[in-house]
Amino acid sequence: MKINIQECANLLKSWDNILILCHAHPDGDTLGSGFALLRALLKMGKTARVICDDEIPHKYSYLFDDIEMQEFSEDYVIAVDVATVNLLGSLQERYGDRVNLCIDHHATNTNYAENLLLNEDAAANCEIVYEVINALGVEIDSKTAACLYTGLTTDTGCFRYSSTTSNTYRCAAELIDLGADNGRINRLMFETKTKKFAALERLATQSMQFFLNERVCVITITNEMYEQTGTDEQDTEALPPLTRQIEGVEIGLTIREKKDKTCKCSIRTFESVNAADLASAFGGGGHKQAAACRFDCDVETAKKMLVEKSKELLK
Amino acid sequence: MKINIQECANLLKSWDNILILCHAHPDGDTLGSGFALLRALLKMGKTARVICDDEIPHKYSYLFDDIEMQEFSEDYVIAVDVATVNLLGSLQERYGDRVNLCIDHHATNTNYAENLLLNEDAAANCEIVYEVINALGVEIDSKTAACLYTGLTTDTGCFRYSSTTSNTYRCAAELIDLGADNGRINRLMFETKTKKFAALERLATQSMQFFLNERVCVITITNEMYEQTGTDEQDTEALPPLTRQIEGVEIGLTIREKKDKTCKCSIRTFESVNAADLASAFGGGGHKQAAACRFDCDVETAKKMLVEKSKELLK
Repeated sequence: MKINIQECANLLKSWDNILILCHAHPDGDTLGSGFALLRALLKMGKTARVICDDEIPHKYSYLFDDIEMQEFSEDYVIAVDVATVNLLGSLQERYGDRVNLCIDHHATNTNYAENLLLNEDAAANCEIVYEVINALGVEIDSKTAACLYTGLTTDTGCFRYSSTTSNTYRCAAELIDLGADNGRINRLMFETKTKKFAALERLATQSMQFFLNERVCVITITNEMYEQTGTDEQDTEALPPLTRQIEGVEIGLTIREKKDKTCKCSIRTFESVNAADLASAFGGGGHKQAAACRFDCDVETAKKMLVEKSKELLK
Repeated sequence: MKINIQECANLLKSWDNILILCHAHPDGDTLGSGFALLRALLKMGKTARVICDDEIPHKYSYLFDDIEMQEFSEDYVIAVDVATVNLLGSLQERYGDRVNLCIDHHATNTNYAENLLLNEDAAANCEIVYEVINALGVEIDSKTAACLYTGLTTDTGCFRYSSTTSNTYRCAAELIDLGADNGRINRLMFETKTKKFAALERLATQSMQFFLNERVCVITITNEMYEQTGTDEQDTEALPPLTRQIEGVEIGLTIREKKDKTCKCSIRTFESVNAADLASAFGGGGHKQAAACRFDCDVETAKKMLVEKSKELLK
């Protein structure tokens, strides 16, 4: 059932023992949403915690380093920034069919939760969570503001993508006034490359291939590159935007080899192509200009299939 | 004489036949300031035009492509985003000692103008120009909003640098509501690399050298690199931020060889070092975290001097 902000706040007020689920391979928006909501619920005297299938990358530790995780048996389950249950990873099995509330901004949300608060115009899910916390009447402290700002900035490529609206900027202004240290957060999220990442990025740009009259750009990240640079999949988050920075490119594909030789693809597009359409052709999903999908085949086969499908979509 | 926003607006109301000067090697903030102010003055029925020592890079043409340049003999001269007269380039000779008004946000402004409207807390000069236009009571149309937004986004690295305040974000929100197409502007300013620029960027990252326990990172751009990639100095604007993205780097230097074998250096720092201090040691200037200076010597000599001076500042 679709609900609005006030209905969502009313539900949260009446609940306790709440488990908040972030999506697997977590990013700043799902984590920012989860920990901001957690902080608000804890301030209301509720028992709650955030969990996630994968390990949370170290750079996000400031979102929760002051929170003591509570052990309890959950009565309610909330998913934040999770468009489909399979994005919960291994948590899907246990919680997939019993999500009481989903707060999301993906147009592709499959409406799997008992209650769905969806705003597909929000550039970041944290914009919605910010409204929910305001509707709860909970004061936003600087740590909560930092969580919400983190979601805004990471899901908009630091306020760069065309999905960013005046509301996103206005939220950011308010969160800075509430204590979010925007300079420090953006430095952590965008400006701090380890030397090994810089080496991976160099290999990535060297791997660039162009197809279909240079309208498609493909970056390929292999296991060998991870070994050569001492990096792993967690280090690849910043690579997909590189693919669509070259003039004339309409579809940017970043194909990452997995340990088992299958692969994943991150898709970035501009207005001319819907990235979610391309991803959904291979069982994936996402936004209009940023989406992803997995393959059970090797990198080269996946690349061929992706370029083939891109050809159709570019027509 | 230092003046405030309202005094600045009063002066502008009383003036006509106004020449607006941007700084040489123009960027989005000086051009955005210049053309936004020009648009406001034209709406007030004034005669005015913008000039600049160097050719304006093609990517900024949307700032003025609908404006017919007027020829007239100027009664008043305004400089925007120009901290010192030598930044006017060859225009300094003719106008350096007769600037009636300077609107600027550089702490290093030398107070050379008859009237100075200075706000060093503004992340971009366009924040100040926005206030001036509001004080003039001129309606801001979508083209003017685009000029002002361009200044905000380019001078803050797309709202990333720590200089960005809640006021910057709030201005951006208002300018988007007034019609600035933020997605398109940011795509043009940040996301569109020509293939030749991508090639130059690759050479630039390959040229990276580290000094003083890897606290200083130096990129060197030589004439040979320009030749090899078909680029020129105009293509180097996006390189300086690369220098301080590596973990542990506190001073990032981008040294660009000029045709006559002398060179220029762009300096980027974090909180621990004042970039303007380093630049001013060599007769340059700028902001706390972004500054620049010129050298009459070759690249290698300049590099040695810069690293030597960096050593002092890092102590």
